[in-house]
Amino acid sequence: MTLILALDFGGTKLAAAVVNAGAREWLGYDRSLSPAASNASTDLKIMRSLIKSVLQDRKPAAIGVSFGGPVNATTGTVRLSHHVCGWENIPLQQLLEQEYGVPASVDNDANVAALGEFRYGAGKSHNNLFYITVSTGVGGGWILDGKPWRGAEGMAGEIGHMVVDPTGPICLCGKRGCVERLASGPYMAEDAREELQRGGGEVIRNLVGGNLELITGKVVSEAAAQGDELAQELLERSAWGLGVGIGNVANLINPQLFVLGGSVTKAGERWWKVIHKTARKTALPEVNFEIVPAALGDDAPLWGAVALAEDLLQ
Amino acid sequence: MTLILALDFGGTKLAAAVVNAGAREWLGYDRSLSPAASNASTDLKIMRSLIKSVLQDRKPAAIGVSFGGPVNATTGTVRLSHHVCGWENIPLQQLLEQEYGVPASVDNDANVAALGEFRYGAGKSHNNLFYITVSTGVGGGWILDGKPWRGAEGMAGEIGHMVVDPTGPICLCGKRGCVERLASGPYMAEDAREELQRGGGEVIRNLVGGNLELITGKVVSEAAAQGDELAQELLERSAWGLGVGIGNVANLINPQLFVLGGSVTKAGERWWKVIHKTARKTALPEVNFEIVPAALGDDAPLWGAVALAEDLLQ
Repeated sequence: MTLILALDFGGTKLAAAVVNAGAREWLGYDRSLSPAASNASTDLKIMRSLIKSVLQDRKPAAIGVSFGGPVNATTGTVRLSHHVCGWENIPLQQLLEQEYGVPASVDNDANVAALGEFRYGAGKSHNNLFYITVSTGVGGGWILDGKPWRGAEGMAGEIGHMVVDPTGPICLCGKRGCVERLASGPYMAEDAREELQRGGGEVIRNLVGGNLELITGKVVSEAAAQGDELAQELLERSAWGLGVGIGNVANLINPQLFVLGGSVTKAGERWWKVIHKTARKTALPEVNFEIVPAALGDDAPLWGAVALAEDLLQ
Repeated sequence: MTLILALDFGGTKLAAAVVNAGAREWLGYDRSLSPAASNASTDLKIMRSLIKSVLQDRKPAAIGVSFGGPVNATTGTVRLSHHVCGWENIPLQQLLEQEYGVPASVDNDANVAALGEFRYGAGKSHNNLFYITVSTGVGGGWILDGKPWRGAEGMAGEIGHMVVDPTGPICLCGKRGCVERLASGPYMAEDAREELQRGGGEVIRNLVGGNLELITGKVVSEAAAQGDELAQELLERSAWGLGVGIGNVANLINPQLFVLGGSVTKAGERWWKVIHKTARKTALPEVNFEIVPAALGDDAPLWGAVALAEDLLQ
């Protein structure tokens, strides 16, 4: 059998898995949190032990890698990580090829997850799709004409920093009203904390036992489901921002399908309803598209890494 | 010599030209305004006489067509024209092929102009570009990986209806703060008229001899160049709206180049300066791009039509 090794260097977690080429069930799977004070070399060390644990002395035929940050996919060199320091210009593909003696392919997590959903997930019957992950940040990956579209310099897909409300709140990037500033989990939590300091939001307050530091995007979603008005407003603003972004993208590129993954997409029916309504209203009436949840969940990057590796074996 | 016939069905004008394949100078060129109460059949009649005048009994080897409205580029069937009635579902490619007995290729004007600038104009040294026309409306055409990108159903490129200011003025499409609503010539003129009814804008008023109906986007540009504050504000808002749109597109697709054509791009240095500044500020720092004026001017669609026809002869 031809063994494939798939690696996922996320911002907060690391995962490795092995699968037989063509198969759709993991032969081995191991994951670990990336420690708070991690850097590139500690991440690599942890990954080496995960690889050892899943390979168990077997040798893979190829390695596919999803990396949580911008990557030069042609050379497989990491540009940087926004979460873990020391990754600047690390030639990850080359490192892995030398260490394991087999070909490797590296791309950023949104592109790789898009490829995973396209080959094995929610996008299987579509040739043109945009995958959007909505969790700590908001990022996207393109499949155009059945192939990943990475842009002229590998930077395509940054829907998170599309401005949809120039009078909105300020994003870490310095602009106002980016999709990420409105839609991501941590920003929803930040806005909730700020509002709660002015009173109200009893349900949110109870869910965290009064400790506002414990508020997360998930807590906001839960409070919204329990009928908390403030939480519902925040969640609707999140969905509205992303919905405008999706409608704008539909007008601009006219893909058939949007696949949405990441923790915030588990926020419930109301969130999805606002997304659908806002995107439909923002796109021109003659521009058609569907919006569906990701099918592979948190494993989308790993399955995309499998696809990258399978392409190396063609 | 192999003769190519290029046709441009614009919203307000019609043009036909002939050129030898591979040559870059027109052998014949004729144009006509489309009458105010025109429809598809009067437009076709006028075009037939333009074709007769430029062909002078010669027979072309292929016909390329730029059409001012959405087109199914695969079949060459017009979907509709937003300016001239009666164009719904007209099989233009088929009509021309039957009438002239040679292969024809039809696409919408923004896509065709993008192809013209890519093959023969400002985009010659770039494989990935977005062409934007800013005049009566705002539209765009993609070249990705050296080929036109039309979207899953031929609707890609609609930057004009990207929302960049959800609290902005209402567009004909029903949304607030579309790029077209902020940046196009007629909307700038409409906003100027509205402001002038409240007083001010002396320079604009003088330029049209007090008849506000005569205000156009060009008049606003002229008044701005003469130092009129209201005109400068309107022009800067136009440039700001388009600049946000361009920055958003850069983040999303990461092309190397934006080529800007159409009457509003002649608005002067100040307009260009705001475009550059706003687009740069909207795009992420690590996303690179250039913004340049179209090189082929009003002939971009005709030269793009030549490229369509040359591709038929490959």
